Amino acid sequence: MSKVKLSSLDPRAPKDLDKQDTKAATEKILVELDELQNLLYAEGKHSVLIVIQGMDGSGKDGVIRNVLGNMNPQGVMVKSYKAPTAEELSHDFLWRIHHHAPAKGMIQVFNRSHYEDILVTRVHKWCDDETARKRMAAINDFERLLQEHNNTHILKFYLHVSPEEQHERLSERLKEPAKMWKYNEKDFDEAKLWDIYMEMYEDCFAHCNKPEWTIVPADQNWYKESIIARALRDLLKGLDMQFPGMKK
Amino acid sequence: MSKVKLSSLDPRAPKDLDKQDTKAATEKILVELDELQNLLYAEGKHSVLIVIQGMDGSGKDGVIRNVLGNMNPQGVMVKSYKAPTAEELSHDFLWRIHHHAPAKGMIQVFNRSHYEDILVTRVHKWCDDETARKRMAAINDFERLLQEHNNTHILKFYLHVSPEEQHERLSERLKEPAKMWKYNEKDFDEAKLWDIYMEMYEDCFAHCNKPEWTIVPADQNWYKESIIARALRDLLKGLDMQFPGMKK
Repeated sequence: MSKVKLSSLDPRAPKDLDKQDTKAATEKILVELDELQNLLYAEGKHSVLIVIQGMDGSGKDGVIRNVLGNMNPQGVMVKSYKAPTAEELSHDFLWRIHHHAPAKGMIQVFNRSHYEDILVTRVHKWCDDETARKRMAAINDFERLLQEHNNTHILKFYLHVSPEEQHERLSERLKEPAKMWKYNEKDFDEAKLWDIYMEMYEDCFAHCNKPEWTIVPADQNWYKESIIARALRDLLKGLDMQFPGMKK
Repeated sequence: MSKVKLSSLDPRAPKDLDKQDTKAATEKILVELDELQNLLYAEGKHSVLIVIQGMDGSGKDGVIRNVLGNMNPQGVMVKSYKAPTAEELSHDFLWRIHHHAPAKGMIQVFNRSHYEDILVTRVHKWCDDETARKRMAAINDFERLLQEHNNTHILKFYLHVSPEEQHERLSERLKEPAKMWKYNEKDFDEAKLWDIYMEMYEDCFAHCNKPEWTIVPADQNWYKESIIARALRDLLKGLDMQFPGMKK
């Protein structure tokens, strides 16, 4: 990918796309996904890693609940990465990541990921450019390891929300009792660092793009969910999986 | 390292080396090691990974007991790798290895290691040459990750025993009650594959040599132990470590 400019990408669905039609199509894909995931688990040859990144309020939790959490929980694991613990910091930055890499037959979802080590850390200058370059090389090595040595298919989604939509969603967290728990007083401070976050994401897409990132317009949940459901369905369908026969 | 020919390397100490003098020197080094390990732990900036490889009967356990197991067990962990479990096989071959990578301040010893995935597996043709090449690249990436991203200093020792000495040691396991538990009827079958094992080790040294392997003459335990103790002492001494001051 040549360097993308995130501010030039539309965070909304194409104008002529019908919301109800799209939602109905997504529902059908979710049924397909349920069957395909069962086949992935039964065959036990491939594994899938889904990385979800995005700014606060971009709707990471919603995608996990509405699309990825819809499949059999025995075959789908979700790991949310927070700030590293003291124990995690005493290891290389991929140590806590590798531990949760998917076993064959499994789908592993990362809500935030190893990419935070070249995003939030760079924005706050905890990580200099030289370290960031080395980390990017290590990330590429690591993703190649999973792909080449465990049949891991990696989908990376960046949820592309507009600063206006983000502000609205963060403000809602202050008003709605059911959303207040998600509010963190630091969120608005982070939002002020928007431009530098975008720059670091653009740098990340330019240097860690194998497999390629999907930039998902995320101002409308129904559109975001349709893209992610479709991408996973297309991936799984393309694997040409077979139910294994009786065990001998 | 250009390709070494193991059969041309002497598995014994230089003739003029005095056994008693060497043992006395090793004893002094072990005292130093105890202090240096304490400093490594206290400072908490560096980590050390010691990989021990060698044929059956080459004395891996002895090195661990007599040299590495002599330090504070709180700061020295030993992991023995056996044939992978079903769970481990459902991940990439480095997954079970990364989990045991040393935290800062720690010394981690691997009794056998990720190298078995390009040794025993190749000897038995469970792993073809193309896969072996890819694994070697992944091993190099992985060792670079530990070195660059967790200040991990890696020492790799191959215990170079002669086939004659090996045969004697394996035979002893059948005779001595205290050693019988180590006997495995497959050991003698493996010993018949000596030449192909040597070839695979030589190929491993040629392709995974950063950091460099130390080939340790291992027919005499006192000499083997002196080399390993000295190498670890020299490494730790070279780190220029300092006790941290009071916590603020």
